[in-house]
Amino acid sequence: MPGDETEIKIFAGSSSINFAEKMCKYLGTELGKSQAIKFSEGNTFVKILEKVRDKDVYIVQTIGLNPNDDFMELLFWIDAFKRSSAASVTAIIPYFSYAKGDKKDEPRVSIRARVCADCLEITGVDRIVTMDLHSPQIQGFFKKPVDHLYGFPILCEYIKSKNIENTVVVSPDAGFAKNARKIATILKAPVAIGDKIRTDHNEKAQVLEIIGDVKGKNAIIVDDFTISCGTLIDTARALKENGAEKIYACVTHALLREKGLKALEESDIEELIVTDTVENPMVSGHPKIKVVSVAPLFAEAVKIIHNRESLSRLFDNI
Amino acid sequence: MPGDETEIKIFAGSSSINFAEKMCKYLGTELGKSQAIKFSEGNTFVKILEKVRDKDVYIVQTIGLNPNDDFMELLFWIDAFKRSSAASVTAIIPYFSYAKGDKKDEPRVSIRARVCADCLEITGVDRIVTMDLHSPQIQGFFKKPVDHLYGFPILCEYIKSKNIENTVVVSPDAGFAKNARKIATILKAPVAIGDKIRTDHNEKAQVLEIIGDVKGKNAIIVDDFTISCGTLIDTARALKENGAEKIYACVTHALLREKGLKALEESDIEELIVTDTVENPMVSGHPKIKVVSVAPLFAEAVKIIHNRESLSRLFDNI
Amino acid sequence: MPGDETEIKIFAGSSSINFAEKMCKYLGTELGKSQAIKFSEGNTFVKILEKVRDKDVYIVQTIGLNPNDDFMELLFWIDAFKRSSAASVTAIIPYFSYAKGDKKDEPRVSIRARVCADCLEITGVDRIVTMDLHSPQIQGFFKKPVDHLYGFPILCEYIKSKNIENTVVVSPDAGFAKNARKIATILKAPVAIGDKIRTDHNEKAQVLEIIGDVKGKNAIIVDDFTISCGTLIDTARALKENGAEKIYACVTHALLREKGLKALEESDIEELIVTDTVENPMVSGHPKIKVVSVAPLFAEAVKIIHNRESLSRLFDNI
Amino acid sequence: MPGDETEIKIFAGSSSINFAEKMCKYLGTELGKSQAIKFSEGNTFVKILEKVRDKDVYIVQTIGLNPNDDFMELLFWIDAFKRSSAASVTAIIPYFSYAKGDKKDEPRVSIRARVCADCLEITGVDRIVTMDLHSPQIQGFFKKPVDHLYGFPILCEYIKSKNIENTVVVSPDAGFAKNARKIATILKAPVAIGDKIRTDHNEKAQVLEIIGDVKGKNAIIVDDFTISCGTLIDTARALKENGAEKIYACVTHALLREKGLKALEESDIEELIVTDTVENPMVSGHPKIKVVSVAPLFAEAVKIIHNRESLSRLFDNI
Amino acid sequence: MPGDETEIKIFAGSSSINFAEKMCKYLGTELGKSQAIKFSEGNTFVKILEKVRDKDVYIVQTIGLNPNDDFMELLFWIDAFKRSSAASVTAIIPYFSYAKGDKKDEPRVSIRARVCADCLEITGVDRIVTMDLHSPQIQGFFKKPVDHLYGFPILCEYIKSKNIENTVVVSPDAGFAKNARKIATILKAPVAIGDKIRTDHNEKAQVLEIIGDVKGKNAIIVDDFTISCGTLIDTARALKENGAEKIYACVTHALLREKGLKALEESDIEELIVTDTVENPMVSGHPKIKVVSVAPLFAEAVKIIHNRESLSRLFDNI
Amino acid sequence: MPGDETEIKIFAGSSSINFAEKMCKYLGTELGKSQAIKFSEGNTFVKILEKVRDKDVYIVQTIGLNPNDDFMELLFWIDAFKRSSAASVTAIIPYFSYAKGDKKDEPRVSIRARVCADCLEITGVDRIVTMDLHSPQIQGFFKKPVDHLYGFPILCEYIKSKNIENTVVVSPDAGFAKNARKIATILKAPVAIGDKIRTDHNEKAQVLEIIGDVKGKNAIIVDDFTISCGTLIDTARALKENGAEKIYACVTHALLREKGLKALEESDIEELIVTDTVENPMVSGHPKIKVVSVAPLFAEAVKIIHNRESLSRLFDNI
Repeated sequence: MPGDETEIKIFAGSSSINFAEKMCKYLGTELGKSQAIKFSEGNTFVKILEKVRDKDVYIVQTIGLNPNDDFMELLFWIDAFKRSSAASVTAIIPYFSYAKGDKKDEPRVSIRARVCADCLEITGVDRIVTMDLHSPQIQGFFKKPVDHLYGFPILCEYIKSKNIENTVVVSPDAGFAKNARKIATILKAPVAIGDKIRTDHNEKAQVLEIIGDVKGKNAIIVDDFTISCGTLIDTARALKENGAEKIYACVTHALLREKGLKALEESDIEELIVTDTVENPMVSGHPKIKVVSVAPLFAEAVKIIHNRESLSRLFDNI
Repeated sequence: MPGDETEIKIFAGSSSINFAEKMCKYLGTELGKSQAIKFSEGNTFVKILEKVRDKDVYIVQTIGLNPNDDFMELLFWIDAFKRSSAASVTAIIPYFSYAKGDKKDEPRVSIRARVCADCLEITGVDRIVTMDLHSPQIQGFFKKPVDHLYGFPILCEYIKSKNIENTVVVSPDAGFAKNARKIATILKAPVAIGDKIRTDHNEKAQVLEIIGDVKGKNAIIVDDFTISCGTLIDTARALKENGAEKIYACVTHALLREKGLKALEESDIEELIVTDTVENPMVSGHPKIKVVSVAPLFAEAVKIIHNRESLSRLFDNI
Repeated sequence: MPGDETEIKIFAGSSSINFAEKMCKYLGTELGKSQAIKFSEGNTFVKILEKVRDKDVYIVQTIGLNPNDDFMELLFWIDAFKRSSAASVTAIIPYFSYAKGDKKDEPRVSIRARVCADCLEITGVDRIVTMDLHSPQIQGFFKKPVDHLYGFPILCEYIKSKNIENTVVVSPDAGFAKNARKIATILKAPVAIGDKIRTDHNEKAQVLEIIGDVKGKNAIIVDDFTISCGTLIDTARALKENGAEKIYACVTHALLREKGLKALEESDIEELIVTDTVENPMVSGHPKIKVVSVAPLFAEAVKIIHNRESLSRLFDNI
Repeated sequence: MPGDETEIKIFAGSSSINFAEKMCKYLGTELGKSQAIKFSEGNTFVKILEKVRDKDVYIVQTIGLNPNDDFMELLFWIDAFKRSSAASVTAIIPYFSYAKGDKKDEPRVSIRARVCADCLEITGVDRIVTMDLHSPQIQGFFKKPVDHLYGFPILCEYIKSKNIENTVVVSPDAGFAKNARKIATILKAPVAIGDKIRTDHNEKAQVLEIIGDVKGKNAIIVDDFTISCGTLIDTARALKENGAEKIYACVTHALLREKGLKALEESDIEELIVTDTVENPMVSGHPKIKVVSVAPLFAEAVKIIHNRESLSRLFDNI
Repeated sequence: MPGDETEIKIFAGSSSINFAEKMCKYLGTELGKSQAIKFSEGNTFVKILEKVRDKDVYIVQTIGLNPNDDFMELLFWIDAFKRSSAASVTAIIPYFSYAKGDKKDEPRVSIRARVCADCLEITGVDRIVTMDLHSPQIQGFFKKPVDHLYGFPILCEYIKSKNIENTVVVSPDAGFAKNARKIATILKAPVAIGDKIRTDHNEKAQVLEIIGDVKGKNAIIVDDFTISCGTLIDTARALKENGAEKIYACVTHALLREKGLKALEESDIEELIVTDTVENPMVSGHPKIKVVSVAPLFAEAVKIIHNRESLSRLFDNI
Repeated sequence: MPGDETEIKIFAGSSSINFAEKMCKYLGTELGKSQAIKFSEGNTFVKILEKVRDKDVYIVQTIGLNPNDDFMELLFWIDAFKRSSAASVTAIIPYFSYAKGDKKDEPRVSIRARVCADCLEITGVDRIVTMDLHSPQIQGFFKKPVDHLYGFPILCEYIKSKNIENTVVVSPDAGFAKNARKIATILKAPVAIGDKIRTDHNEKAQVLEIIGDVKGKNAIIVDDFTISCGTLIDTARALKENGAEKIYACVTHALLREKGLKALEESDIEELIVTDTVENPMVSGHPKIKVVSVAPLFAEAVKIIHNRESLSRLFDNI
């Protein structure tokens, strides 16, 4: 449904204003005019301040540090664009927080990612662009096309630029082992895997063992997100005990707050490498954290979508 | 779809724990076991802690002071109940905050109440019970049955018990005039209506006039909700200017925070009469506020629904 | 989905042939060829007589004096256009009769406007353009965009041209008070409101009182529709009793038949001002009725939609 | 979803009051209390006057002589029952008029029977019971179960009771040939078929030939419905020309008005045998018409459905 | 939704590779690159090998000799195109095998054609083009537009070219009589109809009688499909017994395997005339069978659809 | 929706007749009467041979060695049960073959598991019971409740009964590592993981390394399914090279055909332990294969569902 093909119309929700601006800067376009208010009684209100009739619009809104506010606002944006007769609405969701709720691993819980997918679709979203979902199956929660971008190739470029020798890529647990394998292939390094074992069936005490050889190696712990740095720090400690040298950590989505940052500072981790999918002022200037921007990658994806080209070239080096 | 008819299974979401307990106490039943967590990164998680297979469950969750958190949690509850094979899920929403977003009164805005209705229905709700919606048309936003309870008959009972003489019921504006007429009929009083007039088309300055006779009368200002007491206080001032005696205010849903309470204290309003649809600790013990509980009415409605009787007798005196 | 942008393709259902022709005349385009038959056994049959593949079509069909026939025919038109591969189908419904059934104000009734909205959407309508719905919330009964035009600015232009002095705008009841306030603002006049009061709780006898000052003023009674002129005439009588001078009435949708016209003739009302949303031969030439055409406004709306511009400028003076 | 199994709750729409009463009489139950109004401006309004919460209700409404009114009323009934929390709603539609619009046999027409099916389902119908649809494929237009009853076995019983000798069953055209074959099998008679042939490709003149042997036989022309008796009378004339003796006609649905009745009176047809699926006062007492009631068959079907038994025994003799 | 209008993008599913190539040849375009695999464990896998973003694609896949494999593959194609952001997906289904399951003619069976229609639509098909459905009502099983092409005009052209004199068109049973009438009109011939009669109600023995005059005539038996030639051969035998001269048979869809071909060889049928809707290597070179290609007609239909013209001119001579 | 609670009504599709009979035997009930035919032209046809009105039915149909036939038949069963007015239809799918197609891991492919989920739901399934899905996220592809049973606890019981000492659980790759960890916990054994490394970026040659200590240990390779035993045998070889002692393999779903069985016979694997989710005559009597039946577990699940109890106790030991 091509609308006005000469111009890409990007709007920013309140959780991704900086990110959307970086995208616009990369594309040489101007951010769409809009307004989001959270009223004193807590209700979110959105209003589009320019004509969108028959345009293909892109609304950037990460589901980040205030996921419920962010998500509801996104729904209202989509509805507002649809009722204003936009030709199509693409939701750019750099971090899709509720992707973690992707299965029924306990009795009588909700599959929250599916709830969110259904709400986005019933409200009228036409396409989703997101990054490093907790599991790739979540694409299947949607009927609408989902473009799933990968943050690790960009993060690995930075790691390569550091010229760390004798590295091993470490997954903190079996669940991330498959992705760790892919990252290790990019970095041409072996992998090791953290393995939690219960020592006594009465107690909750667990020992973290490392499967694979890490002795004398520089380890790069990889994961999709971190909230408190807890898992990363535990893994770092176990790696040290197994004779690893320097320890780095690398995650796509950084949801750190004060407590996690303090723990990071006191930990064995040399550097934490993250992206800017979550707008997180605490993280940006931190001395132990390197933030690599993925906004240009999202901008490139939007350009490809807008020009009706194929996204597959973005995935060449994976 | 009758499940276990011998027992009514009520669960409380985190925004209505007291309200649900009052309902259970009225019904002589025990609250269902469940757990709602808001994780440190902001994600809401819910878990049902007892068997619900083939039961008709009632989940009580007001969309109150934190409407986005409250609403998302409600969606997850509904999904969890459905995936746990409940026979039916009735959402008890004493205050449905987003009902205010019920029309497109400006260009390019969302009809937020319809977005919420669609999300509730796609997630699987079977019935909604709520009170004093901002407009009765919102029932039509749902395909599923909505039982719309009225708070004013109960509030009026309290007002009658005060034996105020020579009263006039005042709607703060034309929008609430129709409801004010109904309340006046219950109280056997005449009505007056606040009417805002722009004095100069360049300025935003407005004058509030009172249409109808209030001189020497005790006025009861009525409205569906109040956030800052602003409208109530403006109306009270205009009433005083028009010669009214004592001023009372009466609203169903009280969303007051510190600032509003302070304004109330300093105002001409003798007493503010509200219900407990919003769990609001600031309101409950306030000397100028009377809270009338509508939990028994909701409990009665649940009993009627559960026993497959007719709700219409609840509406007899309206 | 722009089809052939060079030409606007308007079709007329059998209830709006004149109205659609006025629209076409305004736009300098020709009415689409089509045929609607009501067979002797009562079944409606429609057939499109020209190519519509991939066109954006506009079907004009008021739900007027024979609402069930009109509505069913509209459904069949939409289906015929969709199965003939029109790019999009916009239903132009100058008067949407069933909008009156917009709430469940009695036990065990249907919300008929929602039933109609669902049927239009399941059949495949892409957009609705209508005027002065009984309540603005009805937009929220639809998922598809609804363009809601206002008839009163045009009606007010006519009233202004009459240079009536010392006017008051009168809402016949509290339900229309909010709209009366808006109209009064356009006419720079004060408002008064009719208020029905039951005199005795055993009897149905009601007294109509007028809230607000009308003495010595020229009154303009406003409402969204009239069937029998009953409410208008009752209000006129009460206004006279309260000392009003000349009485005018102004409604958007005129559904008058013989009986209503006769009552109008014998009443205190000087002139009844209406639009042409309902094709009503009894009304057009009546000496006491002025018909203001809103077909140009609808035509303008179609032009804006077709050129992918913004409808909001149509609402500037409201 | 068994509701109250002790009682069958049948309601009558305004097009089938007599038929529903015959059903109730057969079942020894009382008709549900309800009210349908067609207002002076043409809008239909329905209201249920007794409790239906969690009941399995059966609403009887033929789509008969005023199909648009009848159909819209049926939609409103279904919505009213659903919003009143009926456990299930079964629509009993003795004659489903729009079944004739079952295919796209011309370019750019609507498949009206599918439009009707979609509207019934979106409004919430749970099951349909009907008779002698124009084509059996229409069951497939519905997702919900359709119980399709046959009128011909009952009509044939009456014909058998007349002891007509040497009969031939005649289909007026190739389209009804398959059904005529089934009827002939019940009556143990041969079949003949009317075949219209254009005599000259410039003219519309057609000759009706009879394929098969009818000479000296008593013919029974069979069809699913008749509006004007036109086809039946043309066929009768051709049969006479081919040497047939007495001519009878037998159709399920009789939509005759004055003109058709007069034509019947003047025709070669001895007797027209029909059912009471359409409430048609002109037909009931007519000397040349025999009306056989199928209300007991519909009542029997409802009883079977209500008792969760199998309808297939109703079809034994087909 | 016009995509790239300069190029028609046709893809072939594995059941219609030759047919799709014939279409491409006719249109002077190249077949889209794609890959379908049936893995050793039986799972079907499809992959599109070129860019389709925002293109209108046409996927040709007959539901032919392996209907379950063919149908599942078609579903996966549609999903793959949709998730690859094709503007629209048109399924070209020359033979839609499950169209035979179009009614509930026995208790407790599935309406399989509706199941297939629902699966195609939920997966995302935008339009279907098919030929000679078992019944025209099947178009109504779909909400999406179905273009129903007719094979008989093309087959009749071949028959006319044979200059057979004194012909009669024979329907094997009452069910196909209506179509036989249409074919007879094209060939300017009379019709006769096969009529199966049970001779004894205890036995299953049936006698096939011929209604209509065939003596001394050259008969053309017509039907929509043949699997074993059984019905055709039985009818041929009965025609011979009734004095017919030469016997031809003509069906659209040929699903013959070895057994049926052998029976054909030994039968009274001079020649069997079929189309190539089913890719059937056993049929193509058979001495008693003439295959007339309908690929050009499908290609023409695609061209018309792609150029947003009207398909109705394809139906001129019907 | 409780139907007849006294009796559990299980039906067998043609791919799970033995499995369904084992379930019935366990439950002491009789298999429902039904008939599935695959006609000579390839179409599947199903018919239910007993009354199911208002019953809760359970249809057992694995998507096994002929997944397309099996799946289409399952759809037709569901439709037949729904159109026969079953109260609810639970699909028991011991092996859900298309679960492997759960993500878009290449450009322009289908997410086949979601296609299947949508088709099952649109056809009307009310609940799914299945085992060891390729990924647990697939539950989220369904809106309807999915009961996901685990085969490994039962397989582990058999392994424990063999009293193998000094064991290590081996995942063939990182993708199954998380499940291997769970199985190792049941068996109180450590884990090791196969890790494929590309040796040269020009060639496809890969080396399989084993991460973790296996020297001198008895290894149990675990996976969810095997088609050709290829992965199992490659892993076994690498384990031998790393000094493992005896090698066992254990998978839930066995899709082996002749070739795979021969490879197994010639391999280092002592024994292959599988379940009977796939009816596979080649597997049942094989000397190197142990088949453990999970039919009692499925029967137990059906009993729990039918008695409205909680399935969670089935998962106690996981």
